[in-house]
Amino acid sequence: MPMENFFKVTELESVLALRQTFPLVATEEVALAEAFGRVLAEAVRSDVDLPDFRRATMDGYAVQGTSTFGASEGNPAYLTLCGAVPMGRAPDFTVGPGEAARIATGGMLPEGADSVIMIEHTEAVDETLIEAYKSVAPGQNMVAVGEDVARGQEVLSPGRSIRPQEAGLLAAFGRSRVAVFKRPVVAIVSTGDEVVPVDQTPGPGRIRDINTYTLAGLVASAGGVPFPLGIVHDDPRELEAKCRLALARADMVLISGGSSVGARDFTIEVVSGLPAAEILVHGIAISPGKPTILARVGQTPFWGLPGHVVSAMVVFEVVVRAFVEHQAGCAAGLRPRPRLTARLTRNLASAQGRTEFVRVRLLERDGDLWAQPVLGKSGLIHTMVQADGLVRIGRNTEGLDQGSPVAVLPFH
Amino acid sequence: MPMENFFKVTELESVLALRQTFPLVATEEVALAEAFGRVLAEAVRSDVDLPDFRRATMDGYAVQGTSTFGASEGNPAYLTLCGAVPMGRAPDFTVGPGEAARIATGGMLPEGADSVIMIEHTEAVDETLIEAYKSVAPGQNMVAVGEDVARGQEVLSPGRSIRPQEAGLLAAFGRSRVAVFKRPVVAIVSTGDEVVPVDQTPGPGRIRDINTYTLAGLVASAGGVPFPLGIVHDDPRELEAKCRLALARADMVLISGGSSVGARDFTIEVVSGLPAAEILVHGIAISPGKPTILARVGQTPFWGLPGHVVSAMVVFEVVVRAFVEHQAGCAAGLRPRPRLTARLTRNLASAQGRTEFVRVRLLERDGDLWAQPVLGKSGLIHTMVQADGLVRIGRNTEGLDQGSPVAVLPFH
Repeated sequence: MPMENFFKVTELESVLALRQTFPLVATEEVALAEAFGRVLAEAVRSDVDLPDFRRATMDGYAVQGTSTFGASEGNPAYLTLCGAVPMGRAPDFTVGPGEAARIATGGMLPEGADSVIMIEHTEAVDETLIEAYKSVAPGQNMVAVGEDVARGQEVLSPGRSIRPQEAGLLAAFGRSRVAVFKRPVVAIVSTGDEVVPVDQTPGPGRIRDINTYTLAGLVASAGGVPFPLGIVHDDPRELEAKCRLALARADMVLISGGSSVGARDFTIEVVSGLPAAEILVHGIAISPGKPTILARVGQTPFWGLPGHVVSAMVVFEVVVRAFVEHQAGCAAGLRPRPRLTARLTRNLASAQGRTEFVRVRLLERDGDLWAQPVLGKSGLIHTMVQADGLVRIGRNTEGLDQGSPVAVLPFH
Repeated sequence: MPMENFFKVTELESVLALRQTFPLVATEEVALAEAFGRVLAEAVRSDVDLPDFRRATMDGYAVQGTSTFGASEGNPAYLTLCGAVPMGRAPDFTVGPGEAARIATGGMLPEGADSVIMIEHTEAVDETLIEAYKSVAPGQNMVAVGEDVARGQEVLSPGRSIRPQEAGLLAAFGRSRVAVFKRPVVAIVSTGDEVVPVDQTPGPGRIRDINTYTLAGLVASAGGVPFPLGIVHDDPRELEAKCRLALARADMVLISGGSSVGARDFTIEVVSGLPAAEILVHGIAISPGKPTILARVGQTPFWGLPGHVVSAMVVFEVVVRAFVEHQAGCAAGLRPRPRLTARLTRNLASAQGRTEFVRVRLLERDGDLWAQPVLGKSGLIHTMVQADGLVRIGRNTEGLDQGSPVAVLPFH
C-alpha cells in the first residue's frame, strides 16, 4: 500500500456531508399499530377539526358563564336543571340563561352553554335546582372546536419519527394505515482468516466474530434491518461473491475487519472492482476509526470498517448512523438531538489535527453528572461494555481539563 | 363517589416503591442475534481469557523489545527476519534476540517476542534483514492474554440490558444462545361510550380511540409487548370480561378512560370484584394524572389511567414505565438514567403539595439547550406532539424562574 494513502484522510464533516448523495429507501403502507418507531413518508393534514364538538374537561354542569357571574359561597347562583348530557351523543336540548345541564368529562356541550362549572363548586338543592358557589368564565372547563388541531392544518411532515404521540395523532385523524419509509437493509460482512463463527471454539490464533453482533445491534438501533452475511476469509473471490449478494439485497453494506494494511487493500481492491464503484473516502480524520473506507457502488454505500471492535463501533456511532438515518428518510434537524452535559473526572490529552472520541462512563455524584473516561486499546470490547457514551474532542483542541463540562453522545 | 377519595392521594415515591411487590416475568432462551434490546436473565462469567493468545494491534514485526533499545533514525537496530506469522494460526517458530518476524494486525505473537514494532518505523535492507528506527517497550502494540477479560471474571450480571456491546461480549464468549427475561405482555383497554375505533367516523359527541395507540407505543418503548383489547363501553359486564381475558394472558393491564367520576367508580367497582383484587392506590399526588388507580389482582398490576391523552401518557412516563421495567427484569441503578439539563424559556408557576410535570420542547440557542414549556389542556394530543420531554416541578417548589436550569426527562 502506497504510504501517501495515510495522508489522504477526509475530515469528519466532509464525510458526513456525503450522505446526502445517497437516495432514500422506498416507502410502504403499514397498519397504524405497526407504525410505532417508523419514519413517516407522507404529510398529514387535518381533514376535520379536532375535536369537532365542544367537549367538557370536567364533571359538572354545562351553563352560560354569565349565569354564574358574581356567585360565591355566601351568595350562590341558583340554576335550574334543564337536562343531562348523554355520553357519546349530541344533547337534544339547549341551555338558556339561568339553566344548567349535568355533563361528565368528555361530554358534548349543549347549544347555548359556553362553559362547565365543576361539580365540586355546586350543590343540589332538589331535583330541579342547584346552587353554584363560583363563577365560570365562558370557555372554562371545556375544549373548543378545533382547539387541539384546526381543520386544514399540516400536523405532521414527512421524515418525522412516529413516537407514541404521533401514533395517537394519526389515530385521532382515523389514519388506520400510514405511509412510512421502509427500514434500510444493511448487510454485514466480517472478514479475516482468524475469525470463526460464534458457535465454534477458536483454534490457536483465532477469535470469535464479534463485529457481526455489535454492528447488527447498532443497525437495529438506527432503524435499519441487519442482514448478516457471515465471515469471509481473505479470498477476493469469496468477498466479491458476498458483495454482489449484498448489492442485490441491501441498501448499505458494512465490511468489517481488514485492520491490517494488506486486508484493507484487499477490501478496496474487491469493492473497486464492483460495477459502477467509486472510492469516496479513504481514511477519516478521527480516532479511533481512521482506516475507514467509504465507496459508492451504484447507489449503495459500501463501508470498510476497522476490524478493532471499538473502532468499528465508534465509526458507526459518529459516521455510519447518520447515513442509515438519512437513507431511512429521517428529516435532519426536526428536533435537537439530546446531548448530555457532564463534567470530566480527569484531564484528557489529545493529539491535534483529528477529532478524537473517548469512551466515558457516566456517574452521578452529589447530583452532578460526571464523565469518567474508560481507557484501553481499541480492540477491547469490555471497554465499550463499561461505557455509556462518547466524548468528542475537537481537532483543534489540545485536551480537556478535569472538571470541565463536556457534551456526551450517549449510546442507544 | 365519596368526596374523601379526592384526598387519599398517594405520594409519587410511595407509588413507585410498590413496583417491588410485583413478580418478574419468566425467562426464556433466545439466539444471540435476537437478544439485542432484551434484558439478560443470567450471570455471564468468562470461561476463557480474552484474548487467549497475544495479539498484534499493529502491522509490523514481532520482536523482543530489548533488541530495539536505543534504536533511532541515525542509529537503527538491525534485525534478522526469522519468519512470518500466518493469520489465524499459531506460528511454528520463536523469535530470539536480534530477530524479527513479520506480523499483521490480529496475528499471534510467536514465543520469544514480547512486542511489535510498527512497519512505519522499519525499512527492509534485503530479504533477511530489516532496520528499526525506533525502540519498542515490551508489551507495546499488542494485547496480552486476558487483557480484555480475564478468565473467571463475572462480566455481565442479570438485569442488564443487552446493548450492541453486550451482544459483542456474549459473542466473544461463544454464547450463541442466551437466557433473557420475556417481554412483559401489557393489555390495553380503552373505555367510554363516546370512543369509537380508529377506522370509524365518529358520530356527534364521539371521538376516535387515541389512548390505545399512544399506550401501545409507550409499552413497546419500555420493552413490553402491547396487547390491545379494544374499546369497552360503559357496561360492567363487558369490562369484567375484558379484565378476565387480560388477567389470563397479560402481565399488566392498562384501563384508560374513565376521567369522569362515574366512570372511575365503575372501573374501581369492576376491578375490585375480580378474584384476589386489592386497590393499592386511589389517586397520585401528581399533575396531570391525579385520578390514577393502581390495583393488585392476584400477581398482576391493574392500572386505571386518566382518559385525557396527555394525563395517561404522563402517568405512563413517570409511574407505569418503572413498573414495566421492573417486571421486565431490568436491574435498577445499573447506570444513571441520562437526564438532560436545559434552561427554562419562561417562568413556571406551580401549585404546592403535588409534583407537577410540564411538557417542554427543546430548542438550541447559541449552543445552549432551552426548555420551552408547551402549555395546553391535558386532553390535547398536539401538545405532546410538540413536546420533547417533561420537566418535573417538585411538590415543595412554588415555581421555577426563567433561565433557571431544569432536568428534562426526554421522551423515548
